[in-house]
Amino acid sequence: MLNTQSRSINRWISILYRYGQSHISKQVGKFNIGSGQYVFLLALYKKDGISQEEISDHLKIDKATTAKAIRRLEKEGYIKRDINSEDRRAFKVFLTQKAFDIKPEIYSILRNWSDALSGGFSEDEKKLVLELLGRMAKNAFEFIDKKNEQ
Amino acid sequence: MLNTQSRSINRWISILYRYGQSHISKQVGKFNIGSGQYVFLLALYKKDGISQEEISDHLKIDKATTAKAIRRLEKEGYIKRDINSEDRRAFKVFLTQKAFDIKPEIYSILRNWSDALSGGFSEDEKKLVLELLGRMAKNAFEFIDKKNEQ
Repeated sequence: MLNTQSRSINRWISILYRYGQSHISKQVGKFNIGSGQYVFLLALYKKDGISQEEISDHLKIDKATTAKAIRRLEKEGYIKRDINSEDRRAFKVFLTQKAFDIKPEIYSILRNWSDALSGGFSEDEKKLVLELLGRMAKNAFEFIDKKNEQ
Repeated sequence: MLNTQSRSINRWISILYRYGQSHISKQVGKFNIGSGQYVFLLALYKKDGISQEEISDHLKIDKATTAKAIRRLEKEGYIKRDINSEDRRAFKVFLTQKAFDIKPEIYSILRNWSDALSGGFSEDEKKLVLELLGRMAKNAFEFIDKKNEQ
């Protein structure tokens, strides 16, 4: 059973993240992809034909992990790489038809999960939680930005 | 710059989690541990002398990742394993004095991060965000539990 004792914001975020990864990885397992890969598909659904470096930057996931996930997605036939470029790091990554075919179901899995999280919330509470999460992300971004300048 | 367009709850959680991991791993780097290891120290600070399986269960982190993190923490001298047991999976894990020495600083890093996230929040908003995160974690737990029963 979930321990409901008082926890820090960071601890709740970690718990929610891990529950989400665990649930979503089970759901996307039928497509032969894992929790480590679907976020890369999402990034490409938003913007197809970008380089591995751009994906890595956008997702704040390190280059080695990105390269591994992209290889796995390529092996499963969800992406192809433009191998015309002479600079390996600049390889552009493109979605295949197979990736577009599963897009509605991927989004549906994610929507169901977000809906489950806010189960029992009033419309006002749903708006509020998005607003508060957004403000925290902005705070996080600015805090890290300031640290990097130091 | 952080894209402030409308995002789902799940997306914000992922962003906040990744910013947190990135920041905290930089901060704990001076102890020769990474973002993958500090959560295991936290689990042991809460309850010392538990088995790898219990840690894995408690953190919802798979056994292979747990084993790897525990080996790294052992190598760095933060934990020792009770090797008297005949069942390898039942090895109990204990913190060393070195681990207790860094405990205040580890907690301070985490507190600073949680404080940074809620920067500019009123006391009511701080309470509210903890309440909403707690309710979402409860929803998540029950949703996964129900799925597992099906």
